Amino acid sequence: MKKTDLQAYSESVRSEVFRHMSLWLEEKTRGTPPRLKSCLLEYHRRKGKKLRAVFLRLFSDGLGGDAAKASRVAAACEILENWGLGRDDLADHALLRRGKPSLPVIYGEEMAMNSLDLLQTYAAEMFYSYCCLSPKEYGKVFLQVCDSVRKSMTGQHLELEARERPLSEFSEKKYFRIAALKTASYTTVGTARLGALLSAREDLFVSIDRFGLHLGAAFQLIDDVLDAEQDGSGAFGKSVGNDIKEGKRTLLAFKAFKRAGPAERKRLERIYSRGEGKPSRADVAWARSLFFSTGALDDCRKKALSLSELAVSEFTRSLYPEMRNPYGGLLLDFIAMLKARAA
Amino acid sequence: MKKTDLQAYSESVRSEVFRHMSLWLEEKTRGTPPRLKSCLLEYHRRKGKKLRAVFLRLFSDGLGGDAAKASRVAAACEILENWGLGRDDLADHALLRRGKPSLPVIYGEEMAMNSLDLLQTYAAEMFYSYCCLSPKEYGKVFLQVCDSVRKSMTGQHLELEARERPLSEFSEKKYFRIAALKTASYTTVGTARLGALLSAREDLFVSIDRFGLHLGAAFQLIDDVLDAEQDGSGAFGKSVGNDIKEGKRTLLAFKAFKRAGPAERKRLERIYSRGEGKPSRADVAWARSLFFSTGALDDCRKKALSLSELAVSEFTRSLYPEMRNPYGGLLLDFIAMLKARAA
Repeated sequence: MKKTDLQAYSESVRSEVFRHMSLWLEEKTRGTPPRLKSCLLEYHRRKGKKLRAVFLRLFSDGLGGDAAKASRVAAACEILENWGLGRDDLADHALLRRGKPSLPVIYGEEMAMNSLDLLQTYAAEMFYSYCCLSPKEYGKVFLQVCDSVRKSMTGQHLELEARERPLSEFSEKKYFRIAALKTASYTTVGTARLGALLSAREDLFVSIDRFGLHLGAAFQLIDDVLDAEQDGSGAFGKSVGNDIKEGKRTLLAFKAFKRAGPAERKRLERIYSRGEGKPSRADVAWARSLFFSTGALDDCRKKALSLSELAVSEFTRSLYPEMRNPYGGLLLDFIAMLKARAA
Repeated sequence: MKKTDLQAYSESVRSEVFRHMSLWLEEKTRGTPPRLKSCLLEYHRRKGKKLRAVFLRLFSDGLGGDAAKASRVAAACEILENWGLGRDDLADHALLRRGKPSLPVIYGEEMAMNSLDLLQTYAAEMFYSYCCLSPKEYGKVFLQVCDSVRKSMTGQHLELEARERPLSEFSEKKYFRIAALKTASYTTVGTARLGALLSAREDLFVSIDRFGLHLGAAFQLIDDVLDAEQDGSGAFGKSVGNDIKEGKRTLLAFKAFKRAGPAERKRLERIYSRGEGKPSRADVAWARSLFFSTGALDDCRKKALSLSELAVSEFTRSLYPEMRNPYGGLLLDFIAMLKARAA
């Protein structure tokens, strides 16, 4: 099968970004104790899709930024992403990541936590020492990254707080507030802003934010759907049903709750309450089947598609006209690819 | 009782640094969800001794640096210190900090972990946005802080690795290697270097490193001794015997092991092996008493005193002559005060 232009572009970005990550991590881990080094490099070696790197480069290339500089910044972001995955795995007690055992499973929680703190420091240092940014550019990039991290953690905090309340008190509004903070600020808005920053196009931030909030919410919804829907074949690369195990307040769970009968509501509420420890495997399977039978899954998938549509129309209206060829078109293909995950 | 000059100086530094920390944290937490804000400010509100801040200011003031700037940098370091305390409490499952329940006890592990990651970001941002540093100064300070963090985490990693091996395989050499990385690089060497950096006296780094390694090792030894020796009155502000509970490889444990008889060795080895979960309260009490009865405690205290002496002579020889009045003298008083903790 012939590769699409987006596939070819993504592959070239991925390999360049991977190379920068390897160079930096190798430099920083010279003389590091072997097991600490393995832990620092573990998720990097598993590669991953590097969607954020591709997204950042598309914005920077499209808006006339320097591609070499953007790749380096994208590489630092991907190291930060590996840190974020590790801390999610710690918080969620996840067993799998990118189809293999998670860091806490391999190295133990304490060692993983310690290594991850170091990994975050290496990412921060990379922006400063490796990205060839002028002091002014560095300041802008650094503060943007801090802002994304702040929002993402605020969203994570609200999500943890929501877990302490009954599912019945959750709401669609709360879900989208959390998704905006936790996911969009970091994955879409923050990344696109970095691409625009590196092209000195901060004037586009308002459009980027509008576009990115829709796309980020769609992305989170699709992730939630996949978590419940996967068949356990491992294609997702994460444990299936982990959100249920962790009592994560998803729109999926909330919609299923709303549509369920009284007995089902009671059982779902029990599964989602943290009082009695982790739910059993049977409980998780039952909740997953409820997501199907109530139509909550279909509903969330449709919602994700309509949010993607909103993102596309915002993009087409206000950002596409600013983009150089062929990057506007590639970005539309990129959004279509994200959408296809939900189809 | 009349205050000593060091007490008066320390109090004024502490209150100025506390004020900077409060200003920055209040600014960054405007609009933050209330519980996240409490968690971010929790250890800050408990104040603490701010030994690092005083130490940094003593070096900066002594070497002719700008006191206002040094206080701001010291404040960012103290926020980083609060982050470090929180992550230690998470890793060690500590119950107490500064005489009150630890962050994970109050907020739960997941919420504490998330807030701490945010606190680290705020510290990093403070160096950039609050400390009135020129781009060049910022670079030096930032890279020095990254270097300290890197060493500290490498030390922590080695300490965790050592816990997986029998106590009999530990050694005095390993202990001091870990103390140099984990404690000295961050507490003494790194802090004094920042004071020197801010006074453009990097030429003193070699002397500072020599001095700081002795002092940092002494500081760690004293901390270990206090952990075992305290009577549980809470004056220490941490849980007593926590190092034993966590199986931490201290020189104290190693020396006690070396001097113990075969049956005692066997029991100590079992207490320090992670195979069977946490040791019982009786085991911890027994290990503490063994530290006394074998003379390991006295021995470590003596070792701490002799390391402090080495630090004093290095300081007197190579740093005191560079210091403006009265800061060289105050630094000697400061070291004497640290030493007095062990007496």
